[in-house]
Amino acid sequence: MDNISSITLKKCVNEFAKLPGIGRKTALRLSIHLLKQKDDAAKELAQAIIDLKEQIKFCAICNNLSENEICEICSNTKRNSHQICVVENIQDILAIENTQQYQGHYHVLNGVISPMDGIAPSDLNFESLFSRVQPELQVEVILALPTTVEGDTTNFYIYRKLQNKAIKISTLARGVSIGDEIEFIDELTLGRSIINRVPYEG
Amino acid sequence: MDNISSITLKKCVNEFAKLPGIGRKTALRLSIHLLKQKDDAAKELAQAIIDLKEQIKFCAICNNLSENEICEICSNTKRNSHQICVVENIQDILAIENTQQYQGHYHVLNGVISPMDGIAPSDLNFESLFSRVQPELQVEVILALPTTVEGDTTNFYIYRKLQNKAIKISTLARGVSIGDEIEFIDELTLGRSIINRVPYEG
Repeated sequence: MDNISSITLKKCVNEFAKLPGIGRKTALRLSIHLLKQKDDAAKELAQAIIDLKEQIKFCAICNNLSENEICEICSNTKRNSHQICVVENIQDILAIENTQQYQGHYHVLNGVISPMDGIAPSDLNFESLFSRVQPELQVEVILALPTTVEGDTTNFYIYRKLQNKAIKISTLARGVSIGDEIEFIDELTLGRSIINRVPYEG
Repeated sequence: MDNISSITLKKCVNEFAKLPGIGRKTALRLSIHLLKQKDDAAKELAQAIIDLKEQIKFCAICNNLSENEICEICSNTKRNSHQICVVENIQDILAIENTQQYQGHYHVLNGVISPMDGIAPSDLNFESLFSRVQPELQVEVILALPTTVEGDTTNFYIYRKLQNKAIKISTLARGVSIGDEIEFIDELTLGRSIINRVPYEG
């Protein structure tokens, strides 16, 4: 791999290999794939990447992707502005939108607190969140962060900051996933799903 | 995933998802990663892809990548032009070059014969191979194709085409890989490695 003689190819492999989850072997495979395609395929990818950077910004309110100053969700007056769902990243918004079960707003933290990875509260979008959450606005904050130690830490941080503001704070229900075999569920999840059992509605 | 509202983002995801081994979720992750980087990172990738297509061609002799009409290996007079190593694709050349054990030339077929995938001999670079292999040139053809049914079929096809030309045809030694545990080796490989055993040289 290290003796790719073409500087042009090496440069392209290096650039692909900077992307997350793409190693040098995959980067080489992608580069050679593009080389073998008709000219347009590679140019269209290159153009799409350039357009992406030039045309997409981050929403000034919630940090979601947006082609305007304010994103489509924040500017949609049909959505419930009294609900703010706090998520780790932009992909989470897409996942929740796909459920079609939520009609409120979002707030993207761009990460979770993780001392191990050197991510402190000051690295995340907390200030803009807390400025959105004022008691007089009667906002409900819905925590939809990952069910990890870092996610729990972040949940607790937000809770401590907001607890004196008389704001409703909720979190996603935790329980057995649809399709799970009981015997293979981790004991923490199974335990919680027993404690938080709900009436059976036939 | 299907309700990405930004057309620009959707276009970039679609283009990434056309690459081999990249699904829509990975394509989205890559696009968002690029969005979060400084401007230069995305532009450098885009430029590297454009340069790749504009500056790299395929060698007129062996179909290897090349920035000139003839690749560095074919034009290197220190290499042995009486050996032609037949490989499936360009990555195989890099793998063999990395061993530093081979000083001959190559010929890239750009695939192997696979009736199941609709790949016939006419789809591969056989004509240019056979025109390179003339008896008066005293060429040895080294078959370095994958050890699959398709690879074996292709080996046999080349053998049949060349068998009357009084040309030396060899294939890679097949046997136990370095680091293999005997008990886990497939029986075909183990069987062949017993039949083709070599003197122990202490």
